[in-house]
Amino acid sequence: METTKPGGGMRRLSGTEISKQIKEELKEEVIRLKTQGVSPKLAVILVGDDPASAIYVNSKKRTCGELGIDSIEKKMPANTTQAELLAVVEELNSDPSVNGILCQVPLPEQCDEHEIICSIHPEKDVDCFHPYNLGLLTAGMPKFMPCTPFGVLQILKRSGCETSGQNVVVVGRSNIVGRPLSILMSLKAYNSTVTVCHSRSRNLPELCATADILVAAIGRAEFVTADFVKPGAIVIDVGMNRIEDASHPKGSRLVGDVDYAGIQDIAEAATPVPGGVGPMTIAMLMYNTINAARFQSGMDRFEL
Amino acid sequence: METTKPGGGMRRLSGTEISKQIKEELKEEVIRLKTQGVSPKLAVILVGDDPASAIYVNSKKRTCGELGIDSIEKKMPANTTQAELLAVVEELNSDPSVNGILCQVPLPEQCDEHEIICSIHPEKDVDCFHPYNLGLLTAGMPKFMPCTPFGVLQILKRSGCETSGQNVVVVGRSNIVGRPLSILMSLKAYNSTVTVCHSRSRNLPELCATADILVAAIGRAEFVTADFVKPGAIVIDVGMNRIEDASHPKGSRLVGDVDYAGIQDIAEAATPVPGGVGPMTIAMLMYNTINAARFQSGMDRFEL
Repeated sequence: METTKPGGGMRRLSGTEISKQIKEELKEEVIRLKTQGVSPKLAVILVGDDPASAIYVNSKKRTCGELGIDSIEKKMPANTTQAELLAVVEELNSDPSVNGILCQVPLPEQCDEHEIICSIHPEKDVDCFHPYNLGLLTAGMPKFMPCTPFGVLQILKRSGCETSGQNVVVVGRSNIVGRPLSILMSLKAYNSTVTVCHSRSRNLPELCATADILVAAIGRAEFVTADFVKPGAIVIDVGMNRIEDASHPKGSRLVGDVDYAGIQDIAEAATPVPGGVGPMTIAMLMYNTINAARFQSGMDRFEL
Repeated sequence: METTKPGGGMRRLSGTEISKQIKEELKEEVIRLKTQGVSPKLAVILVGDDPASAIYVNSKKRTCGELGIDSIEKKMPANTTQAELLAVVEELNSDPSVNGILCQVPLPEQCDEHEIICSIHPEKDVDCFHPYNLGLLTAGMPKFMPCTPFGVLQILKRSGCETSGQNVVVVGRSNIVGRPLSILMSLKAYNSTVTVCHSRSRNLPELCATADILVAAIGRAEFVTADFVKPGAIVIDVGMNRIEDASHPKGSRLVGDVDYAGIQDIAEAATPVPGGVGPMTIAMLMYNTINAARFQSGMDRFEL
């Protein structure tokens, strides 16, 4: 994947471009699968009226459509009970035509997110949030890949960034990004030396400046500044923060966890926000859905 | 827990002493549980004639006896098939009097260890090897604790070694020690900044010398020498390596992954081998067995 060098000399690692390429590969794989009588299908559960959740769900359904993956949406009212939600998951678990299930979060407060995640059959858990799938990852034998972490790995791979033997510092230890990414990169397949740090870590800038690959996943707008970055480092920005900006039409704009402009003359390459890690997550969800269909048909993993 | 300072000024963190104290606490808890009609019971499966495995199993059974925990042993011949082994696990899974099940490894080559581990009901998986339990740990909500890693944490806690905010370097990324320990110490409950490195990591001595707490779990005799240790660091040695030594009666002796004598004037404290982490593992297995009995009786965790 070609990447462009802006004025400052830093390569811009475009997740938009890389995810487009991956989606083309997945689209071809879906065509191949259909000739073999396998038609991948994703079920998305949306509870309540959260506007952001509705946007995410629509985006997932649209991407399914683009790739030839069937999708169904189970839309449930904001006052859905835990029992009603569990019943819908159970119905989807038992439906052999459904390969992947995801329940959009956040859920209304009367619903227990952990119990719902645990109720999705691990074979259909395309978000890779179920403890069983997280545990397979931790044991070094992942089945599904956590979407955002695997998206980061695909950006690195397709931008020619070696992970083996590299010092990786991950800032942030969330269950969805920081922790699973740190585990993945520490596996023999990626072979990095990985440090997980967090807002309470001492000497954070100095620590980050030891990284060959620095991953910011801490959820703080432009927290990672030039002094965090070793000259020549690769910087991956997983942040998505909306900040006020009167000069923008909406009165706000989206920024990452990294001061992208400020590291131009220091980093060798970095992902922008938007257009970096963000678009990779949905592509990886599609990848997991295709693999769910493959596994459930007795096939092995489609490798990217 | 009092710890002794040898000549060099380094504190000796005695797992023998700490595990003795913990076993006393567990023994009292078993007495309390029995007054409530709960009698913890561990089932140990031993396949084949490996002498080391037989010693481990006997040691586990003996410790059960000391603590008032019931134990049963399922001894199976070396030519046991996978199906026969699965049937025994299934029998123990269904037996409500059995709270914990462990299958001693290594298994004969015709048996698939991963499948056997996955076949043990997660509620009875007192080794904490099942992917579901590893995943709960990874998600920051452990049920059972991985025995050796939790043993290390108990040594630190009971020796007055703070983990929060400390830089921890774990050398080794095994599924049983390095990886789960690194995940545990990175959780909010322990709040360390954790680096996992391995034999392929660059500049290993320098990297280790950044650690406030250095954990050696790489399986190489006396690999960690003085140049790996920051002055004042805490050094935890998980290694157990038998090396030839003509001056010893057996012709060999047990050493750790750390050159214990060589770090005397540098480290603030260290665990010896033997008598360090080793004795903690069985104590933690007993702890998990007691908690299995508690959980299966609807009680919450007994905290150490």
